Amino acid sequence: MSLPAVLSPAAEPTDPGWAMKVLLLTGLGALFFSYYWDDNFDPASLQGARVLLTGASAGVGEELAYHYARLGSHLVLTAHTEALLQKVVGNCRKLGAPKVFFIAADMASPEVPERVVQFALDKLGPAPPRPRPPPPGPAPPGQEFVRDAVTRSRHRLQVNFLSYVQLTSLALPSLTDSKGSLVVVSSLLGPVPTSFSSPYSAAKFALDGFFGSLRRELDVQDVNVAITMCVLGLRDRASTAEGFRGVSRAKAAPGPKAALAVIRGGATRAPGVFYPWRFHLLCLLRGWLPHPRAWFIRQELNVSAAAAA
Amino acid sequence: MSLPAVLSPAAEPTDPGWAMKVLLLTGLGALFFSYYWDDNFDPASLQGARVLLTGASAGVGEELAYHYARLGSHLVLTAHTEALLQKVVGNCRKLGAPKVFFIAADMASPEVPERVVQFALDKLGPAPPRPRPPPPGPAPPGQEFVRDAVTRSRHRLQVNFLSYVQLTSLALPSLTDSKGSLVVVSSLLGPVPTSFSSPYSAAKFALDGFFGSLRRELDVQDVNVAITMCVLGLRDRASTAEGFRGVSRAKAAPGPKAALAVIRGGATRAPGVFYPWRFHLLCLLRGWLPHPRAWFIRQELNVSAAAAA
Repeated sequence: MSLPAVLSPAAEPTDPGWAMKVLLLTGLGALFFSYYWDDNFDPASLQGARVLLTGASAGVGEELAYHYARLGSHLVLTAHTEALLQKVVGNCRKLGAPKVFFIAADMASPEVPERVVQFALDKLGPAPPRPRPPPPGPAPPGQEFVRDAVTRSRHRLQVNFLSYVQLTSLALPSLTDSKGSLVVVSSLLGPVPTSFSSPYSAAKFALDGFFGSLRRELDVQDVNVAITMCVLGLRDRASTAEGFRGVSRAKAAPGPKAALAVIRGGATRAPGVFYPWRFHLLCLLRGWLPHPRAWFIRQELNVSAAAAA
Repeated sequence: MSLPAVLSPAAEPTDPGWAMKVLLLTGLGALFFSYYWDDNFDPASLQGARVLLTGASAGVGEELAYHYARLGSHLVLTAHTEALLQKVVGNCRKLGAPKVFFIAADMASPEVPERVVQFALDKLGPAPPRPRPPPPGPAPPGQEFVRDAVTRSRHRLQVNFLSYVQLTSLALPSLTDSKGSLVVVSSLLGPVPTSFSSPYSAAKFALDGFFGSLRRELDVQDVNVAITMCVLGLRDRASTAEGFRGVSRAKAAPGPKAALAVIRGGATRAPGVFYPWRFHLLCLLRGWLPHPRAWFIRQELNVSAAAAA
């Protein structure tokens, strides 16, 4: 309110609206700049860095290998095809990489990643020795919460993602004939990840990607099957709410109202349903202010309870 | 430019900035309202509708069942536990549902969805009969592009998602010791789904959800391992660019520059890397204008080539 008055002597007296516009834009620009310009890159920091690089035989993986080689990093390269990898390794050596190893591996095999990581640790050496052997009992942070991450992710993907894909592909012929609707119930953890939910968030995100893309497919082929993606918060009657008590301070919303919002969205063939409504704003703004968001998540979470859950 | 001049007679002569502010906010509000208020829900439209409802034994699924029952829809309910389902079915009947069937099924088993869809079609009847039997040869739209969707999704998830989770959980102890970095290379199809990429988008979205959540986990536990999520466009040297030629009119970006952006982001422990830069704006604005976005995707795509790919 006071700003246009301060500026008016310098601005055209007949058009102080412009001064405010310029000030606002400059302010927004500066804010944007300070938020998103965060580069203190020091190439020397990568000299001797130990880098495991997947997909290194072509595309951006190959380019990454050459950059790291020039910067003097120690490299383990992996990709599907050995012949291509050998070529990249040769080029890296020419560019001055002090140490380059490679291992051909097909990530379509679930047992391969372990072999690759072990190879990298063997070749590049482990981390600087720990002061003492890892204690028995609960794993230290950084290990505990990814314990079983793979098993849990696989299970979550089947239950919360692949089963939806299966149901959809089986029901789609009938839905195409009847110009039907698919209503997919997701949660806020679909578009906005929080702590201690990585396998669940992965599955819910996957839903979003799959059905977002399928919606475009149906659209460009003029198939009249609606897809409604529903982003719901905790419901007070949901059994999961029990599990969250003590973990999150987020408030639960009434279940019947959430369900009615879903039904309205499905019946009107809306692309998205958000309940409570503020989630829509949250989703539209996700990513805009990453630092405050991280801070808020810290405030809302009972860390020790969440880690134990 | 002309707007403040038009308004000035009605506005306070000393403070035309306010008039513009009010006008702008009103205009934005109206735009927002017209875009996001899109409700022409007619409850009668759901009378006799055939609804297959998963997760129907509790939570929002249970509430959905009760709403549909009141509205006179025909229901097939499914969930894991038969006893819970029977209770919900009983309640639905009391609420006046004309037809309610149920099938207990555990979606953790990959063979279950087919049984559920078949049951629903058997009970609720198929779609209105087609004028003629489905022609041999290529499947009609609505079936062709979800052909193999499950197999392709499973494969994509292993290669582009689960292998990353495996590598991460295996490498995390060493990375924790060395205060290391995880650099995850995704693509624009990670945050923004397009047509004919549903299995790939699902896997890339899953990456975003998993590592977004893991970042928060590491953060709240004060584990100093950085996670950098990279959103890259098509690269001119990428082998995948070949596959996209003729399908998309999107322009490829230079590979070495994209790789350097990734390395800078990883070295400076930035949470996100966007290359080309405009992708950042696109990601910040995703979801804001769904209708124009759908239109643009239609313009950029050679539909018949994409469907055949």
